Amino acid sequence: MSQKRTIRIGLLGFGTVGQGVWKHIQNNGEALERRLGVHIELTRAVVANMAKKRAVRIAKSKLTTDHLAVVEDPEIDVVCELMGGTQHALELTLRALERGKIVVTANKALICEHGDELFKAARKHGGNYFYEASVAGGIPIIKVLREGLVANRFSEIYGILNGTSNYILTRMEREGLSFATILKDARELGYVEADESLDLDGWDAAHKAVILAYLAHGRWIRTQSIQLEGIRGITTEDIESAREFGFKIKLLAIIKRDFTTNKISLGVHPTLIALANMMSRVDDVFNGISLNGDVAGETFLVGRGAGQDATASAVISDIVDAIISIQGKAHHAVSTAAIQAHREISKGVTLAKPSEIIGSFYLRLEVKDEPGVLSQVAQVCAKQNVSIARMIQKASAKGNAASLIFTTHTTNEKAISDTVRSLHRLDSVLSRPFLLRIFA
Amino acid sequence: MSQKRTIRIGLLGFGTVGQGVWKHIQNNGEALERRLGVHIELTRAVVANMAKKRAVRIAKSKLTTDHLAVVEDPEIDVVCELMGGTQHALELTLRALERGKIVVTANKALICEHGDELFKAARKHGGNYFYEASVAGGIPIIKVLREGLVANRFSEIYGILNGTSNYILTRMEREGLSFATILKDARELGYVEADESLDLDGWDAAHKAVILAYLAHGRWIRTQSIQLEGIRGITTEDIESAREFGFKIKLLAIIKRDFTTNKISLGVHPTLIALANMMSRVDDVFNGISLNGDVAGETFLVGRGAGQDATASAVISDIVDAIISIQGKAHHAVSTAAIQAHREISKGVTLAKPSEIIGSFYLRLEVKDEPGVLSQVAQVCAKQNVSIARMIQKASAKGNAASLIFTTHTTNEKAISDTVRSLHRLDSVLSRPFLLRIFA
Repeated sequence: MSQKRTIRIGLLGFGTVGQGVWKHIQNNGEALERRLGVHIELTRAVVANMAKKRAVRIAKSKLTTDHLAVVEDPEIDVVCELMGGTQHALELTLRALERGKIVVTANKALICEHGDELFKAARKHGGNYFYEASVAGGIPIIKVLREGLVANRFSEIYGILNGTSNYILTRMEREGLSFATILKDARELGYVEADESLDLDGWDAAHKAVILAYLAHGRWIRTQSIQLEGIRGITTEDIESAREFGFKIKLLAIIKRDFTTNKISLGVHPTLIALANMMSRVDDVFNGISLNGDVAGETFLVGRGAGQDATASAVISDIVDAIISIQGKAHHAVSTAAIQAHREISKGVTLAKPSEIIGSFYLRLEVKDEPGVLSQVAQVCAKQNVSIARMIQKASAKGNAASLIFTTHTTNEKAISDTVRSLHRLDSVLSRPFLLRIFA
Repeated sequence: MSQKRTIRIGLLGFGTVGQGVWKHIQNNGEALERRLGVHIELTRAVVANMAKKRAVRIAKSKLTTDHLAVVEDPEIDVVCELMGGTQHALELTLRALERGKIVVTANKALICEHGDELFKAARKHGGNYFYEASVAGGIPIIKVLREGLVANRFSEIYGILNGTSNYILTRMEREGLSFATILKDARELGYVEADESLDLDGWDAAHKAVILAYLAHGRWIRTQSIQLEGIRGITTEDIESAREFGFKIKLLAIIKRDFTTNKISLGVHPTLIALANMMSRVDDVFNGISLNGDVAGETFLVGRGAGQDATASAVISDIVDAIISIQGKAHHAVSTAAIQAHREISKGVTLAKPSEIIGSFYLRLEVKDEPGVLSQVAQVCAKQNVSIARMIQKASAKGNAASLIFTTHTTNEKAISDTVRSLHRLDSVLSRPFLLRIFA
């Protein structure tokens, strides 16, 4: 083994997201280390209360209440700012950037208010400021917008960017219950931010939309100049009426740019969206984003918007990008080299045998239209332990023939192919049985 | 202006995709140049027939029939292999990689058969081999899988990876017409590959699935060991029966890995998928991919799978990554610097005024339940040129009151807010009108 460089990571804030990042790097860190050719050390986490019990394994010696023990430690390469709030977070982020560190953040409000200053500080001191986790955690939207779809100009970006309000609207719609009733539940489940206005009045979605608008159009739009409305006023009557008109109600952020007049608009408001539009199917705590590019056309992405794991996934992808940028390599270069490491990890993987591939199936048989056929078919299936879930019989175009169409309960690929073979051998089955899989 | 490095690009193949790449770099190249701080030169394109008329502007001097004029030109940095086929493409790609060039490709069959050899050649000679365009053009799935969701292990990846078969199935379902009838149409529209088996027997989807399985699990699965079935056997009766059971039929590629037994399976076959699953809504030529990661949960992506523009979008994003890797910079570092350039491009953008923001609206009014109210409301709307599309009247819980709910035809934000204000002033309107936007 050659000497590997050690990358040291410090966390400002050790709440839900911080602990998620810690946990997943503990669990999957080795795979990342092989890919990147470095050693990753979780060096220190700043907490408010040393005594508090936490759900992750962490040595007491790695906890501190002193933010500067992370921000000013010259050994620490990457600082994850997961504390939230703007004033103190700004101060600490700037200190870290001034020391040339890379800062990874999930703090949308901070970027929204001070993005310019922060990016400038990062550039000036040779560090960097990464923020994939700030918008729609489980959807790598920053990377998609900035890298994957770099060839495009975006005339329209719209989406559901706040999971909590989407959860409330989805339940109001499904259960016909009032906003107040569902809100009470959502609070009890811990889905609503301490500052409820962020979720309920659209501020959280607005912060995220401002970041997307900046990425797409290079302009910081002040939240004051956004058409901003939340979901408090929506009644079950609205939801019902919208449905009668063929719509669902979703809290949408809509960013439009007209490239002819060069006008841009950004609105965040509850919006009626046609049932035929896939966005109307983005329910519960999920986020959805549609990007309309002049080259790629529409790209539509759905994923978990928030929560410990989805946000941690985004933070870790930024940490990986941070490490790559510290190594001075381009992403693909590393990836090519990493493939060897990757394959090492995949050692011992084998292809599943047909008997190990579980599924349920659809079968269409052309059979003689005479008594006893159904029982013969059922017997063949029973012999292979294939149990029939539902069946339809249809008249066939040919006289004296019928279609027997059925679905099975869960079985496996071997049992079903044996069944098909046996069915084909029956005199009453007139042609090769036609098999389809059922996705579950 | 400082001296900018010139990056020279050569194209092997100048068919639909090649011309798309040429066109979009001609049109939007300046924005990319500013972002990247380089000069991009489209140096040469290899064609089969010099005389053929083409839809893009290109100097005759840039065309050649000699592949080596691209592959062996020491000035050319990035070679885009857009010729298709495997034998000649392999030979030329290896030659280019041996010269340390970066090769960008859309050739899924080639990667599938010779990926290992090609990646090794790239690594050995310090070049690189990029292939975002090989799977689902308009969806940056390679980048999402490898970078955006790098923190995840994937227990399940499934999707619609072939646009042509999806187009045929969608039309069979919508129009109740036979496979043969729709196939004829699809051929006439030029939607079916010259080698029809690629689209109709699932080979194209299988190639793409093999690439995704490799990325996710580090193993090249031979196409021979895939459960591979195409769409030729599907009848309108199957589509109807599936619907009766609550399903649609889609050609799905399904990659599963069980991390306990370390078994992997890959199947490409027509599959019944529940109408409630968003994947069943991915229609026409669109592709859809669902990734189930152990950290981020499910991420679902939809976009154009093929066609000139979507594929060009993917090729150009790889060209950008190639340039970044030539510059020896990490992606984010460039992006931060690029933000200035980006903002320059955005100069002159202004926020649209309310009167310039077009839309249609939903209004709920609480009104006195008495004659003449509707006419008063209609009059106020007419005065602002707001025309009513549909209306529902509902009894209110309060006696002597009713809800008047209506949608408008297209108008603008100023007109609607003036309308709301005027309506509020009417004696017959009992509370502040409640306004929602309609997404169009």
